[in-house]
Amino acid sequence: MSGGVTTPRGYRAAGVSAGIKANKGLDLALIVSDAPATAAGVFTLNKTQAAPVLVSKDHLTRSHGVVRAIVVNSGCANACTGADGLQAARVMAAETATLLRCPVEQVLVASTGVIGVALPVDKVRSGLPAAVAALNADQGAAAARAIMTTDPFPKQAAASAAVGGRPFSIGGIAKGSGMIEPMMATMLGFVTTDAAVPKALLDRALKEAVDDTFNAITVDGDSSTNDCVFLLANGASGVAIDDQSYPAFLEALRGVCRELALGIVRGGEGATKVVTVTVSGAASGAEARKCAKVIANSLLVKTAIHGGDPNWGRLIAAAGRAGVAFDPERATVTIGDIVLFAEGAPHDERAPEAAEYLKGADLAVGVDLGVGTAASTVWTCDLSADYVRINADYRT
Amino acid sequence: MSGGVTTPRGYRAAGVSAGIKANKGLDLALIVSDAPATAAGVFTLNKTQAAPVLVSKDHLTRSHGVVRAIVVNSGCANACTGADGLQAARVMAAETATLLRCPVEQVLVASTGVIGVALPVDKVRSGLPAAVAALNADQGAAAARAIMTTDPFPKQAAASAAVGGRPFSIGGIAKGSGMIEPMMATMLGFVTTDAAVPKALLDRALKEAVDDTFNAITVDGDSSTNDCVFLLANGASGVAIDDQSYPAFLEALRGVCRELALGIVRGGEGATKVVTVTVSGAASGAEARKCAKVIANSLLVKTAIHGGDPNWGRLIAAAGRAGVAFDPERATVTIGDIVLFAEGAPHDERAPEAAEYLKGADLAVGVDLGVGTAASTVWTCDLSADYVRINADYRT
Repeated sequence: MSGGVTTPRGYRAAGVSAGIKANKGLDLALIVSDAPATAAGVFTLNKTQAAPVLVSKDHLTRSHGVVRAIVVNSGCANACTGADGLQAARVMAAETATLLRCPVEQVLVASTGVIGVALPVDKVRSGLPAAVAALNADQGAAAARAIMTTDPFPKQAAASAAVGGRPFSIGGIAKGSGMIEPMMATMLGFVTTDAAVPKALLDRALKEAVDDTFNAITVDGDSSTNDCVFLLANGASGVAIDDQSYPAFLEALRGVCRELALGIVRGGEGATKVVTVTVSGAASGAEARKCAKVIANSLLVKTAIHGGDPNWGRLIAAAGRAGVAFDPERATVTIGDIVLFAEGAPHDERAPEAAEYLKGADLAVGVDLGVGTAASTVWTCDLSADYVRINADYRT
Repeated sequence: MSGGVTTPRGYRAAGVSAGIKANKGLDLALIVSDAPATAAGVFTLNKTQAAPVLVSKDHLTRSHGVVRAIVVNSGCANACTGADGLQAARVMAAETATLLRCPVEQVLVASTGVIGVALPVDKVRSGLPAAVAALNADQGAAAARAIMTTDPFPKQAAASAAVGGRPFSIGGIAKGSGMIEPMMATMLGFVTTDAAVPKALLDRALKEAVDDTFNAITVDGDSSTNDCVFLLANGASGVAIDDQSYPAFLEALRGVCRELALGIVRGGEGATKVVTVTVSGAASGAEARKCAKVIANSLLVKTAIHGGDPNWGRLIAAAGRAGVAFDPERATVTIGDIVLFAEGAPHDERAPEAAEYLKGADLAVGVDLGVGTAASTVWTCDLSADYVRINADYRT
């Protein structure tokens, strides 16, 4: 279903321009739950963690997972900015808390943009009253736009489900679109639900959902200093999730997260195609995932797909260097449904057929490692000359 | 010094066109030692190993490291080609042995080009007599050209040294230029010396030299199915290497290997700049190397350098996700000699100076991890839109 972070009941959002981005675009987003919400967060495992990541972790602990608002700026990552940066992130949360009249630890903070540049905290401060004034249940799309950097389009998703015949909703927004190979969380993702979910179940649901969605995508193999996904549950629907209804909640949550994650891939820098990479026949799930990530990050695989070149040898070469159990004599390589290598022998005569298939925009490639029964799927995009252009002068 | 694989005494080489490449360029190379030479080889660790890799390993064992010739084709990797491919590699060695009148196990074989396409062994067979007829001590450069695929220029290097006042030489050729992140050996490298070196010392010298040279470069993080480096020592200079003279031999060998390896980076697909990446302050040499490789393979680092963007945050972000001990509060980031981050604080005011430095073609970047004393250096190139163009339609 269409919708976003304000689709669940009891949430308002806003996206305004605070002048942080040079182009004067939307750069300050606010997501507010009318009532205190139970909150869960997952954060980048990068050892360089941005100031807002440190502050949000601290606030989640100090508030015992009870949150009223998320404040986000784009245009500056506030990472590697030392003590001043930490202070700026704290001011950003404190000003928001003052305006919303809530404890400061109930405000989570996120930033995205260039690393190592000081956050113009006065601009954030000046912009916040307008953001609070703009808060509305119909402004989810504005918030989705205000968290974008090089993203070609905003990412929103929503789903509804029911427990005992009583409906609840889940909605979310996310942003990409470079430095994307989440190590735990990914980029920025903000998900809301009007179900009531106990803190322990909420934490578990977010981790499980992220593992198969945000953590299963890669654009360029780089992990950000700022990655985080927050999930708020305010109970406004009157539906309470317990162990019995947990699977239904998780399924709906996973659906929203998958749609947001695939949106990040589809909007990957310079991307023209989305590729589903499936590794099967692996010795373990971890090895399947590891190998799928290596294939999904191979520049040679990504450029071949960009050019529509059925160069399946690059798939098997990537699998061979992935550091996982692999039997070339029993391996199978497929592009779409087309088998190009099996039982130790090439079927290059089918390459023209594969070339035709690769003209599409939504593609699948597969490698069966021939050693076990485990499988894993990750999503990536192709690598185009535009990726280089975008990243060769991001700051200039 | 200038020179190549035929600079040491007692070697002849040839490079001819056998019609394997569609463009009728040189595609068949032969390197012959007049006398049987002691030989060492290092091979790709990719689990998918091409037929010529399997045959050369077998021949090195069966010949007890005594070799007369290396035969190489470009235009076809003969990898993932099943039993037919293995037979083709054996035929290539056998025909060469017949023409040179030596045992078949004294011929090493190598191939480079597209994976998964059958080697046109009849073309190799037809081309070999011309290659043998062309063998000459002045044809090293032709051999260097005949092993090229997408390489923009041939790679040759030579050095001379002396033991007890008696001179000997080392020379070599190599080819790149994509699918390059050696896991042990790299791409194709063929090195000759007219020193006499006992097999055990020769093996050790090759491993030591390769570790700091061919194994310390990366173009795109991909490791080939065909990587190998061979080293032949025929003793024609009358100089014998022993434990005492080993350091002098290793130093000369390392110099030749470094020049060839840097040539591969300089000629990396689409490369416009060579970048020396040094990681210091690491907990161990292995962690320093691991972190340097992550930085050197980061698309965001490589594109920033391509665009001359002093985006040092990408260096620290890459270090942070490398999975090694790292203390952001004590880390230092440098571009050239310019410190852009130290003691937890950015020095972004020096970014314009760094941008000026990045206009050069031979660059250095450094990250001190702030936790120990170990260091490692690797070499990489920038990532340009031309890399994408070259690899998006390699076969078409």
